[in-house]
Amino acid sequence: MSDSLYEECGIFGIYSKNSSCDVASQAHLALYALQHRGQESAGLAVCNEGLMQYHRDIGLVPDVFSKDTLEKLGSGNMAVGHVRYSSRDHKSRSNAQPLVVRHVKGSMAVAHNGRLTNAAALREKLELEGAIFHSTSNTEIILHVITKKRIHTHKIEEAVEQAMGEIEGAYSLVIMSPKKLIAVRDPHGFRPLCMGTLGGDTVFASESCALDSIGADFVRDLEPGEIVMVDKDGPHSIKTHCKGLSHLCVFEFIYFARPDSVIAGASVHTARLRAGVFLALEHPVQADVVIGVPDSGLDAALGFSRQSGIPYGVGFIKNKYIARTFIQPSQEERDRSVRIKLNTIEATIKDKRVVLIDDSIVRGTTMSRIVRLIRETGAKEVHVRVSSPPFVNPCYFGTDISSRDNLIACKMSKDEIRDFIGADSLGFLSTDNVKKIAEGAKCGFCAGCFTGEYPIPEPSIVQKSKFEYKISEEM
Amino acid sequence: MSDSLYEECGIFGIYSKNSSCDVASQAHLALYALQHRGQESAGLAVCNEGLMQYHRDIGLVPDVFSKDTLEKLGSGNMAVGHVRYSSRDHKSRSNAQPLVVRHVKGSMAVAHNGRLTNAAALREKLELEGAIFHSTSNTEIILHVITKKRIHTHKIEEAVEQAMGEIEGAYSLVIMSPKKLIAVRDPHGFRPLCMGTLGGDTVFASESCALDSIGADFVRDLEPGEIVMVDKDGPHSIKTHCKGLSHLCVFEFIYFARPDSVIAGASVHTARLRAGVFLALEHPVQADVVIGVPDSGLDAALGFSRQSGIPYGVGFIKNKYIARTFIQPSQEERDRSVRIKLNTIEATIKDKRVVLIDDSIVRGTTMSRIVRLIRETGAKEVHVRVSSPPFVNPCYFGTDISSRDNLIACKMSKDEIRDFIGADSLGFLSTDNVKKIAEGAKCGFCAGCFTGEYPIPEPSIVQKSKFEYKISEEM
Amino acid sequence: MSDSLYEECGIFGIYSKNSSCDVASQAHLALYALQHRGQESAGLAVCNEGLMQYHRDIGLVPDVFSKDTLEKLGSGNMAVGHVRYSSRDHKSRSNAQPLVVRHVKGSMAVAHNGRLTNAAALREKLELEGAIFHSTSNTEIILHVITKKRIHTHKIEEAVEQAMGEIEGAYSLVIMSPKKLIAVRDPHGFRPLCMGTLGGDTVFASESCALDSIGADFVRDLEPGEIVMVDKDGPHSIKTHCKGLSHLCVFEFIYFARPDSVIAGASVHTARLRAGVFLALEHPVQADVVIGVPDSGLDAALGFSRQSGIPYGVGFIKNKYIARTFIQPSQEERDRSVRIKLNTIEATIKDKRVVLIDDSIVRGTTMSRIVRLIRETGAKEVHVRVSSPPFVNPCYFGTDISSRDNLIACKMSKDEIRDFIGADSLGFLSTDNVKKIAEGAKCGFCAGCFTGEYPIPEPSIVQKSKFEYKISEEM
Amino acid sequence: MSDSLYEECGIFGIYSKNSSCDVASQAHLALYALQHRGQESAGLAVCNEGLMQYHRDIGLVPDVFSKDTLEKLGSGNMAVGHVRYSSRDHKSRSNAQPLVVRHVKGSMAVAHNGRLTNAAALREKLELEGAIFHSTSNTEIILHVITKKRIHTHKIEEAVEQAMGEIEGAYSLVIMSPKKLIAVRDPHGFRPLCMGTLGGDTVFASESCALDSIGADFVRDLEPGEIVMVDKDGPHSIKTHCKGLSHLCVFEFIYFARPDSVIAGASVHTARLRAGVFLALEHPVQADVVIGVPDSGLDAALGFSRQSGIPYGVGFIKNKYIARTFIQPSQEERDRSVRIKLNTIEATIKDKRVVLIDDSIVRGTTMSRIVRLIRETGAKEVHVRVSSPPFVNPCYFGTDISSRDNLIACKMSKDEIRDFIGADSLGFLSTDNVKKIAEGAKCGFCAGCFTGEYPIPEPSIVQKSKFEYKISEEM
Repeated sequence: MSDSLYEECGIFGIYSKNSSCDVASQAHLALYALQHRGQESAGLAVCNEGLMQYHRDIGLVPDVFSKDTLEKLGSGNMAVGHVRYSSRDHKSRSNAQPLVVRHVKGSMAVAHNGRLTNAAALREKLELEGAIFHSTSNTEIILHVITKKRIHTHKIEEAVEQAMGEIEGAYSLVIMSPKKLIAVRDPHGFRPLCMGTLGGDTVFASESCALDSIGADFVRDLEPGEIVMVDKDGPHSIKTHCKGLSHLCVFEFIYFARPDSVIAGASVHTARLRAGVFLALEHPVQADVVIGVPDSGLDAALGFSRQSGIPYGVGFIKNKYIARTFIQPSQEERDRSVRIKLNTIEATIKDKRVVLIDDSIVRGTTMSRIVRLIRETGAKEVHVRVSSPPFVNPCYFGTDISSRDNLIACKMSKDEIRDFIGADSLGFLSTDNVKKIAEGAKCGFCAGCFTGEYPIPEPSIVQKSKFEYKISEEM
Repeated sequence: MSDSLYEECGIFGIYSKNSSCDVASQAHLALYALQHRGQESAGLAVCNEGLMQYHRDIGLVPDVFSKDTLEKLGSGNMAVGHVRYSSRDHKSRSNAQPLVVRHVKGSMAVAHNGRLTNAAALREKLELEGAIFHSTSNTEIILHVITKKRIHTHKIEEAVEQAMGEIEGAYSLVIMSPKKLIAVRDPHGFRPLCMGTLGGDTVFASESCALDSIGADFVRDLEPGEIVMVDKDGPHSIKTHCKGLSHLCVFEFIYFARPDSVIAGASVHTARLRAGVFLALEHPVQADVVIGVPDSGLDAALGFSRQSGIPYGVGFIKNKYIARTFIQPSQEERDRSVRIKLNTIEATIKDKRVVLIDDSIVRGTTMSRIVRLIRETGAKEVHVRVSSPPFVNPCYFGTDISSRDNLIACKMSKDEIRDFIGADSLGFLSTDNVKKIAEGAKCGFCAGCFTGEYPIPEPSIVQKSKFEYKISEEM
Repeated sequence: MSDSLYEECGIFGIYSKNSSCDVASQAHLALYALQHRGQESAGLAVCNEGLMQYHRDIGLVPDVFSKDTLEKLGSGNMAVGHVRYSSRDHKSRSNAQPLVVRHVKGSMAVAHNGRLTNAAALREKLELEGAIFHSTSNTEIILHVITKKRIHTHKIEEAVEQAMGEIEGAYSLVIMSPKKLIAVRDPHGFRPLCMGTLGGDTVFASESCALDSIGADFVRDLEPGEIVMVDKDGPHSIKTHCKGLSHLCVFEFIYFARPDSVIAGASVHTARLRAGVFLALEHPVQADVVIGVPDSGLDAALGFSRQSGIPYGVGFIKNKYIARTFIQPSQEERDRSVRIKLNTIEATIKDKRVVLIDDSIVRGTTMSRIVRLIRETGAKEVHVRVSSPPFVNPCYFGTDISSRDNLIACKMSKDEIRDFIGADSLGFLSTDNVKKIAEGAKCGFCAGCFTGEYPIPEPSIVQKSKFEYKISEEM
Repeated sequence: MSDSLYEECGIFGIYSKNSSCDVASQAHLALYALQHRGQESAGLAVCNEGLMQYHRDIGLVPDVFSKDTLEKLGSGNMAVGHVRYSSRDHKSRSNAQPLVVRHVKGSMAVAHNGRLTNAAALREKLELEGAIFHSTSNTEIILHVITKKRIHTHKIEEAVEQAMGEIEGAYSLVIMSPKKLIAVRDPHGFRPLCMGTLGGDTVFASESCALDSIGADFVRDLEPGEIVMVDKDGPHSIKTHCKGLSHLCVFEFIYFARPDSVIAGASVHTARLRAGVFLALEHPVQADVVIGVPDSGLDAALGFSRQSGIPYGVGFIKNKYIARTFIQPSQEERDRSVRIKLNTIEATIKDKRVVLIDDSIVRGTTMSRIVRLIRETGAKEVHVRVSSPPFVNPCYFGTDISSRDNLIACKMSKDEIRDFIGADSLGFLSTDNVKKIAEGAKCGFCAGCFTGEYPIPEPSIVQKSKFEYKISEEM
């Protein structure tokens, strides 16, 4: 029952002109840089002269890959990597990616970020044609659609091109065939995907920070709808599905992407500073110090401070040793204190009027605890400012907002929320300004979770319920 | 580079009339009893009111299942279990069974023992129709064939029945659908499969020792070609494919099956004693003591002793703590002694003329080391007797004899083998007598690996090589 | 609540003339051969030019030592190894051996098999002089006594010699100082210890099977009371404490030692055969087959068969995959069947009058289950013969018979035991004959657990209870 | 070959009036808060009615303690906890704390932070009296000295008091006897130790942040030389050794302590802000942005910004998923980029004159890489400011500055260092101002590592080399 939002995945691919390049190590380092996009599972597939080897499992990158595992994957000329957040209750090894399948027309490895809107209909159609599914992931559907096309085409990129005519929704893909590496971005460009170059080799990654981590130079973002196929003759672009649309998920700038990434030409860090600037303009307040909730509220807090002139302060220490394996204290212990994960710095807060910045409010429970903590530390006033608008709608494109039931903003007015979290005042970034935070970004945005306006039709509920198979994931 | 033969798998299934039976625990205990049939991976699927949960991984049963894992699998009314030996060089998690798939007509879990002879042709056909494969196992092919039939049939047992018309070779199967448990044996009955009853519940197992382990009563073996479907109305038999053929792998009696199992009405232990009796009759020798190579040669040694009147002795101690994780000593250390895994008992051997019994000779290297060990211990003579004929042909039905290159009997005459292993004399059980060891067995035998006469045509080499996909298993 | 008896420990030492010998690997292999003497913890210390490194932990040898661990221990000219069974309820890492301590007179590593009878008094005296103890083991007491002497002596062997004047009870020791390896056996010779040679290097081991495992040649057993010190000039014997006593634990021949070991010039396997022969003479019976309880009853069963002329049969299959991590079935499942660990072979037992041989009866519960199992398998009669006399006294010298409360023979008459275990007849080996089983053994025996006659005074209970410190072991 | 400084340890103790309090959980949470003081090993001992149980191992708190382990430790009325950084090359399980020993006068558990200056002399003396040592830690020496006194005293606090007359150097201790909890701080107060109260129970911790984490209220710091003994009558103070000295390690304020801790009445966070303020005053510079090296340079950077008026910026993203198990990239990969662990934010740095703040420079190699990284990101100028003076002397009191050889400031002039790290200018905090950063702190400081003036004589080298025992740690 997490009170945070999650991106579904991060993807990476590399094509080297050197047939015995240490592509596994490159991909492994890149996955570390993309780990923030998915912490549930990680995986890598390497292609060496057409032979594909892979390893994937539940866990963080360092849990999944040992030195031994990397060495066994060996060298090659291509690799595809993936990190995943699973929105399900329990983690499933069978949903880890990249998916790797055998086929008479050549093997294939696929890494996917996003979510299809016509998954249920596609899956039913495929199953009635005899397809069998080993997982619940959308990615397996994509694999089937591509394979169906591939039987009748000469080139895999043609199969991908045709498949794009059938799948709908959000998808950034990196696909590896025995001889080619193919990167794909859906026609709306919901999820980011960029291309880089590393000593003449071609790399693809969800974010530019992954390019930095391996010393690659950023080349450009893929266009919405673009297919880039790389083979021994270098990268080749197919733009059949480029329809001039552009609906990048605005939450990439607010929270998902790493601050050191640059998306659509705009710095993510700068966008968050600007969100703080806009907040200061929209919801000014008299106060003594501006503090951010670590780590995601810090940038906006600095922006708010710069615009408002209220000093920026360090209000919290986040315990970096509290790991995923943290043994929860008993309820009694928890009530006694919440300062295990996050402690306040009294010198910054005591007797001060505090502006507290965070990137979003989902269920409100975490923010409520944080406000109480600040009051206990001696703050005279607590003014909460949120660097995104209220969530009032589900997301169908890969963000983990499954239902309105868990969204506080669907159930309470702004004043009620303020009272619920115990703040003296509360301000959200406006839906107008949220689209302006990425100054100079060469793209349009999807802000459906805030506005309810989606660039493509919402999937019908009927389809969803019909698709309730009685099978549970692998433990 | 093992010098032993391996069975491919052991399977188990249970259908309880009690909808919240602890079927996972029952299956777990049964897998312990079947562990000798496969030590590479283990798995279990449980069905609770149509909801299937499963767990499978590389390792022995105690490695794969913790108390926690079993509890998570929970109770239900059906379970399917599997242990597997992988003939490949490295172990693959993706080949672990049971396979569990989702489908609009109902989920399905399958456990398989055997090998298809038309796998390559079937797979190519399926792939050209759009099927994609996640593993290299024959079992996935069977799943696809059944699913193709299932789309157009009302009942899953009809789909299975139709699928049996397409798949050829050796297969014993246990299949679980949301409401039914189905056991299948191929029309030749290459691999064993028996049915038992446990307080009114129905169980299936590769061997009767698995029934004993959970306190179930043996009912009968499935007939070759028989389908037994169990649902709430109890077991129901379908005999469309029962063609009166019977070709049980004779090596089940010689080595694979556990001595306490009864197959086709014959005791495995007694069969091995009789193999020793026949050996004593075929290859008599003057000697002071008969010893068997632990554990598989002990029964035949006792039989040889009884027939010949030469005293039975305990010649070896096998170190039971040398586990799979044993760290190999360096070559120098190994040369100095082989007595880490197997030490001799001098009191039994020294100054004696020794008859040494083992169940088979594959490459001859192990036997050669054992004979040297006995001589070093002071034996005056070493007479080797083998309770099976020489291997001169590959097996296409699930035994791991992949090629003639590794078979010493394909490369050397009997005298050359005797000299290679350093014995004073050498005798193999005759192909005539090997089929008689299972006294009273109500079945015929396949002894193709000894005789070259197979009950169904050998798969063509062309098909095999064509099927060499360049993809490696998951690490 | 085990129904078996346990030896406390196995020890090993090696001194190589080669200063960079792979002594860790040699010791590691030897510990595999001694694993039957202790399965709770294992450890190794290596000395390389005076620098001692060690590794020890709870678990079997393969659990404790990885390839990596062995490599880190590195080469050297001496090593000491230890396996331990802990009689305590929970396992303690702090009691694992060898103990290794630093001291200004030189570091020291000690491996110990046995138990002191004056431990409590010694410990109290030492503590009142300022000594502090990190464990509850007797071995730490020995270390303190030696160290106290060492301060005032020039040579460590002199300190050991003096320490032997203070410690009383059972102890076989291997001690490593920066330059010397010292083996010690207590003046009664309760526990075995032998010396071997390996290409000119000197080795010591609890049993000769450990010498075989590394290809070393057996030289001789240490005399009771003997100290053998090995340095660059080779082994040197000190016999100050050799008082002509000899009281080897007779249970070494009955159960503890490995059948392929030779102790005091007598084969352990032959001794067990002879125990069966004596049993047949003492307690003859009309029957159709003789079977032994695996593994420890098999040798005596063969001896009984040879003497009586009743055929030897294989009555049981023991599941070798049931490991220490076996998840216990629920009580209900257990009641339904005990055939998971041990299944019967019906062909051997059904409609037969069975003689059943085991090495000992402790609490009687296991034997009672086994007799029931044989009856369920169809035996007409079950005649139990036990190849040792009834246990009626505790052991103070290292065997885990802590109190009379757990010994069935202290509470019931022979007839009552027969009825309790459900046998048709019951016969124990006589106390006269038990001392004769090791034909030609050049030693006397302690059979105090059977006779109540101990070679040294029993420790007083007062001392024991006084020594109840309120501290629990490390988890 | 780390380029950082380490504190040796963090300690914690709790005495509850409730005899079945969940003291293990409290201590466990507190160790999380103290984890920054030592990441090599962790341990806990619990006392329940005089019975002590403990668990300790190599690893971080979450590695060492599972839910199961905590439950086994159980409830009690006292607990002692410890986290340790080992300055040795390889980690040793035998040096993990708390040390727990048995003794006829009562068991004892000890947790220690600091280092003795007369350790070598004490140890030699003790060993010549017959003491044996299982570890290389100073703590074992303290245990011996206390035990020697304890034999002749009635109360453990008297033994501690007398022992303080013999041990010299830095030590903060928490000691648990069967009935008492004793906290001790050396007469100079080198290492911090504070007392808190939690619902009437008494707690001790190295830092106040540990009190916050369990919801305890801060009471006061222990005075230098003070002993606080807690038993059923509450805390009782012994001030025999309080000599009016006060030499708290100043590096606690600069780096070791957590910013949310308050030591000697001064906020650690505020002290670091002030260090930045002093730096700005001492070494002003014209620049566009001030950035700190995460995490330890951030506070001083904010202080520098406030004083100088140069805007504070976020210059780096630190990858929080790079764990201790991070697989090092090959040298080639490393040369290509250092941006795996630490990436720059171009928007903050490019075309800017940058002031870069870190807390200290040890060997200079890390700072050199960071400066290069900033230049590659496009900075026009890089001005390095260090919030502590240059290290030019070793520390004998628990900070890991073993020798002058690794200190860049011992080998180069300030200008040479500037050139070595590639900065445009370089400024260190002055030794005068470093003692003033903790405004209002009610204590004196030891700044020996900067000034060479130590409050007690340096240990002689002779003693040290004499103490080179040839024994290596347990692996």
